Amino acid sequence: PNIALLPGDGIGPEVAASAVEVLNAVAGDLSFDEHPAGGAAIDLHGVAITDEAMAAVTASDAVLLGALGGPKWDTNEPGAVRPEQGLFRLRADLGLYANLRPVRPLRALYDASPLKRELIENVDMLIVRELTGGLYYGERGTENGRAFDTMVYTVEEIERIARAAFNAAKSRVTSVDKANVLDTSRLWRKVVTRIHDEEFPNIELEHILVDAAAMKLVAAPRHFEVIVTENMFGDILSDEASMLTGSLGMLPTASLGGNGPSLFEPVHGSAPDIAGQGIANPIGMILSGALLLRHGLGREEQAAAVESAVDKALEKGIRTGDLGGTATTAEVTKAVLEEL
Amino acid sequence: PNIALLPGDGIGPEVAASAVEVLNAVAGDLSFDEHPAGGAAIDLHGVAITDEAMAAVTASDAVLLGALGGPKWDTNEPGAVRPEQGLFRLRADLGLYANLRPVRPLRALYDASPLKRELIENVDMLIVRELTGGLYYGERGTENGRAFDTMVYTVEEIERIARAAFNAAKSRVTSVDKANVLDTSRLWRKVVTRIHDEEFPNIELEHILVDAAAMKLVAAPRHFEVIVTENMFGDILSDEASMLTGSLGMLPTASLGGNGPSLFEPVHGSAPDIAGQGIANPIGMILSGALLLRHGLGREEQAAAVESAVDKALEKGIRTGDLGGTATTAEVTKAVLEEL
Ligand SMILES: CC(C)[C@H](C(=O)O)[C@@H](O)C(=O)O
Ligand SMILES: CC(C)[C@H](C(=O)O)[C@@H](O)C(=O)O
Repeated sequence: PNIALLPGDGIGPEVAASAVEVLNAVAGDLSFDEHPAGGAAIDLHGVAITDEAMAAVTASDAVLLGALGGPKWDTNEPGAVRPEQGLFRLRADLGLYANLRPVRPLRALYDASPLKRELIENVDMLIVRELTGGLYYGERGTENGRAFDTMVYTVEEIERIARAAFNAAKSRVTSVDKANVLDTSRLWRKVVTRIHDEEFPNIELEHILVDAAAMKLVAAPRHFEVIVTENMFGDILSDEASMLTGSLGMLPTASLGGNGPSLFEPVHGSAPDIAGQGIANPIGMILSGALLLRHGLGREEQAAAVESAVDKALEKGIRTGDLGGTATTAEVTKAVLEEL
Repeated sequence: PNIALLPGDGIGPEVAASAVEVLNAVAGDLSFDEHPAGGAAIDLHGVAITDEAMAAVTASDAVLLGALGGPKWDTNEPGAVRPEQGLFRLRADLGLYANLRPVRPLRALYDASPLKRELIENVDMLIVRELTGGLYYGERGTENGRAFDTMVYTVEEIERIARAAFNAAKSRVTSVDKANVLDTSRLWRKVVTRIHDEEFPNIELEHILVDAAAMKLVAAPRHFEVIVTENMFGDILSDEASMLTGSLGMLPTASLGGNGPSLFEPVHGSAPDIAGQGIANPIGMILSGALLLRHGLGREEQAAAVESAVDKALEKGIRTGDLGGTATTAEVTKAVLEEL
């Protein structure tokens, strides 16, 4: 299989190298086709991802992305070229409408959570974020001292993300919206309810408002099994939820749904403050590699092997700085490789 | 002074009665002019607030609101009459563009927080939420299987909420937006920066993205002094932040900014599950009364007297069910009155 590798910016290339090492160790038959993306692509080509890279990505079997962006490319000008445009184009052109974000605090890291241990124990939730609609892709503009953005959803967009969520659930789906304010949310609630009633009557469905969800994620995280929500709410809630684990650097995410390849990346950003020092936590990226094996290539066994190697390495106590330890990126990678 | 009293639905009337008792005890010269709002108004008049009530509210010196809504009036039909329309009309007609939400966990309740005690100690933040713009008041619609909502901001709307935030800050304002995606956020960031540079250069200003804010509120709440953000982000983040205190039932909020009266209400909702049982926590409502004294009538001393009576009553151990105790609404009210 041919993996499109987009290391990106900041710590992206450092952690991407770790993931490639681990993937090569667990699967002997992968080839990696590397392209710049984000700020790196802007510096070289003036765009956040080139047509050439997009062609290679589209032809690949799966995409592994590091992290995009950094202060060098920060700009507040409407219409400017920005690193995250690479992400938007990848999501749109590949049709990646379902972003899956598992939140499962590791026992070895319970104490790293800001939440009390008794709230965190056995949390095992999956956030399913709609990724190609809502405020991200609607019409926007700025004129005469007035700016606007449009949140848009169609029935079809809601149907397919609802199915993705119900399919991922064993017993309960929590759909999050703001149906007491937004027309998109009222449509969302109606369509999710219909898909439930017609196709998944045996899964429990509950609807909660986004403000209540933001509370409950902190107050009672164990309540949730699968959460499904629109793009911007999902962006906010999944980052909030990731904090429950106390270790943003540990979390992978998968973006699925198109006819072509899926995309896998760590939840963390490019962390410009520690880039180039070899101290970034590579685990989020390594676990993104595991998701790539599972969802991108259908290799459950290899995926589970990587995940269990990570668990074991952590149980033996290795920690990068973000977790209060002093291990380097290379040392953590080595510890994981040793467990494989 | 003449207070417009809108008890609303569910536990609203129960906790409103407590607040009125406490206000009467601390200030002998208030008159209360009561009107139905929300579901109560829909049942009586078919609208969530009548023109007559709006006229009385507009002529009052300050507005005290209980809570609106409940399952009886829940509907998912676009165009239906809903309780929260009362709230939207109050905010819009009174021009209440600044919603102030103080988040200050009480020492006596540190253990009620889902967060570890060391993260909560000495948290003292104020969330300043823009309340009359954004997705709440923009154009919306549903047609042919497609729904949309519009997020809109003008320079003037951003200027005035920025000033409200800087005026409330001693040393730092954190402005929250999604400037890597939204044109409204890019305008927001630009205008907040200009108001800072021109009018408040001595206050520190930082910009963070809404997803990062949702994380940091949980991971490092003490970081924040004043947070300013647009309407929907403020709705989500302020509810998330309220959970830090572990006691939603304790929190008051003030909506200010118009030429007429300001509005004061507890953060909690109408709690239909416990309505009518006399067990609701009245403290959020009583403290809303304190904010009314302070911001609505300019009576700092009376406001502080109420707040300190609440603190003392809690320190002596009285707790309603939401805080793990068994005290009734009336018992808590009596305990507060005794400390006055
Ligand atoms: C970089 C940013 C535009 C992006 C998003 O909001 O989708 C990021 O926060 C994410 O969650 O992948
Ligand atoms: C009831 C609802 C429309 C309202 C809002 O979103 O503004 C509430 O959540 C609040 O925060 O006052």
